[in-house]
Amino acid sequence: MKHSIIIGGAGFIGSNLTSELLLCGNQVTVIDNLSRGLRAYISEHLKNERFKFFNFDVAIRQQCDDAFENAHKIAKIDEVWHLAANSDIPAGVSNPDIDHKDTFLSTFEILIQLKKYNIPTLHFASSSAIYGDFGDEKIYETIGPLLPISNYGAMKLASEAQITAACESNLNRANIFRFPNVVGVPATHGVILDFVNKLKTNREELAVLGNGTQKKAYLHVSDLVSAMKLITTKESPHKALLVNIGPIDDGVTVKWIAEKVVERINPKARILYGEGSKGWTGDVPKFNYSTDRLKSFGWSPGLSSSESILKAIDEIAKHEGF
Amino acid sequence: MKHSIIIGGAGFIGSNLTSELLLCGNQVTVIDNLSRGLRAYISEHLKNERFKFFNFDVAIRQQCDDAFENAHKIAKIDEVWHLAANSDIPAGVSNPDIDHKDTFLSTFEILIQLKKYNIPTLHFASSSAIYGDFGDEKIYETIGPLLPISNYGAMKLASEAQITAACESNLNRANIFRFPNVVGVPATHGVILDFVNKLKTNREELAVLGNGTQKKAYLHVSDLVSAMKLITTKESPHKALLVNIGPIDDGVTVKWIAEKVVERINPKARILYGEGSKGWTGDVPKFNYSTDRLKSFGWSPGLSSSESILKAIDEIAKHEGF
Repeated sequence: MKHSIIIGGAGFIGSNLTSELLLCGNQVTVIDNLSRGLRAYISEHLKNERFKFFNFDVAIRQQCDDAFENAHKIAKIDEVWHLAANSDIPAGVSNPDIDHKDTFLSTFEILIQLKKYNIPTLHFASSSAIYGDFGDEKIYETIGPLLPISNYGAMKLASEAQITAACESNLNRANIFRFPNVVGVPATHGVILDFVNKLKTNREELAVLGNGTQKKAYLHVSDLVSAMKLITTKESPHKALLVNIGPIDDGVTVKWIAEKVVERINPKARILYGEGSKGWTGDVPKFNYSTDRLKSFGWSPGLSSSESILKAIDEIAKHEGF
Repeated sequence: MKHSIIIGGAGFIGSNLTSELLLCGNQVTVIDNLSRGLRAYISEHLKNERFKFFNFDVAIRQQCDDAFENAHKIAKIDEVWHLAANSDIPAGVSNPDIDHKDTFLSTFEILIQLKKYNIPTLHFASSSAIYGDFGDEKIYETIGPLLPISNYGAMKLASEAQITAACESNLNRANIFRFPNVVGVPATHGVILDFVNKLKTNREELAVLGNGTQKKAYLHVSDLVSAMKLITTKESPHKALLVNIGPIDDGVTVKWIAEKVVERINPKARILYGEGSKGWTGDVPKFNYSTDRLKSFGWSPGLSSSESILKAIDEIAKHEGF
């Protein structure tokens, strides 16, 4: 029985992955500091004898030590999924300490444990944000130079760099998944939750950051989990395998999302747009993501960007009581 | 009068830059934790009224605060040169905390001060180590993917990423210099010093890590300083300007260097080679560096790799009493 550790397993994507790996028959140990994740997201598994949860902050040396010591006592650790990060980009822009601790140091400390316990495999949730702004240019995994425009993207790239260096010394295989915008439940952040919450406060009006023309691709969390699982089953000539994950379409605009959220919550609400094509500092306005490598592994998403968004709007609206 | 801060200004490259910027008429403030740098390397300037030295460790928040507060009191800060780092790659492999603190956190903390004091310009000593191992492929600044194979390279890439993110929010211009192997005095580390020191201990024998076939390009520190100075005078359409700095030749082998050091110190000494083409974990065995961008700014080095090495061997040998 494979023993999988999921760091950040009580978060949005982590809790979906936890359910999936338990379904696959793995022994699953979730380590989460519950800064953005919630115990409620994983509470359904607490009676499962193949599941264990530890509330530790891996960005803190002593807690990371304790977490891995506890996990190792359950069974030899076969793989670590590192999904812990600060996912709130604007928060990291105003206070860089947040990205440093939750996104960078978490990776740094986990790598120390991988070496200590001789754990051969790491799966890492990186991000399209590591690329920065390439405008209309197609973004392959091999593109350069990498000029992230947010601390979030910087700390994800910094994490990738640490991981590739670890592949040179002790890791056997690292899958570095460069995530797109992911939607679904339990949502902890993101444009849909933001819009739904705004309409919860004021049902008549929805204020949108930027002019709404930003177009981005979105993947439903169920598709993301299936893509990652697929890649973990594939051989690779590279110890560090970089893979863009995303839908195969161009995406949808913020304006379209705003309209669909309004339609679902209160069709009479007015939408008020801001100025500029960027929503906030560090937001990449345009994004042409290549998923050729992912497709070469035989993968295709179940849902398009628009289908993913519509499904997530409904899921989040229900979750928020609409 | 331009006020330049040099972090790491008491180190090998920093002390050479300090002399040069003082010659140019700048007000120069050196901040150094003296972990690898030495007060002796800058003591000749202590009586210069345009020079000030502060012994602070910028990787520690309170000390970085104090350092910039002191520097700011002298005069408004126009530019910061960030040359502080752990330059001992094997040390960082065995203890990642060293690279994290001295190479990564120094950048992180300096960026907080640049924002606080509204300092528009940063010059950063990055490294060819951010590229990882591209074999025979020509390494342009735009190459990808970036897969560093040492913690040193990882933390330099992590620093670059933070700097490009800062260009999006508060920095007006960042020159990111990707250094080659640099030689000269006052040497604090590197292959020549290593060989000279070994012959100091045992005049009859020189043990070389690896089989000596590693071929690398070397630049003399005087050429490096002149290249950086040139680039700082050039306009750039990019806020973050990446520039490979290096000689225009292919470089020399470790074997050649060992022979030349033996020739200079004790021609009768035997050279003993190890195995493998890598000297240590994290060492990139082959390296084909493009300096086309640097040349496009009108630069050409004064010395070739072999001339740089010969000059540095003589300088270091003299310095070590031979």
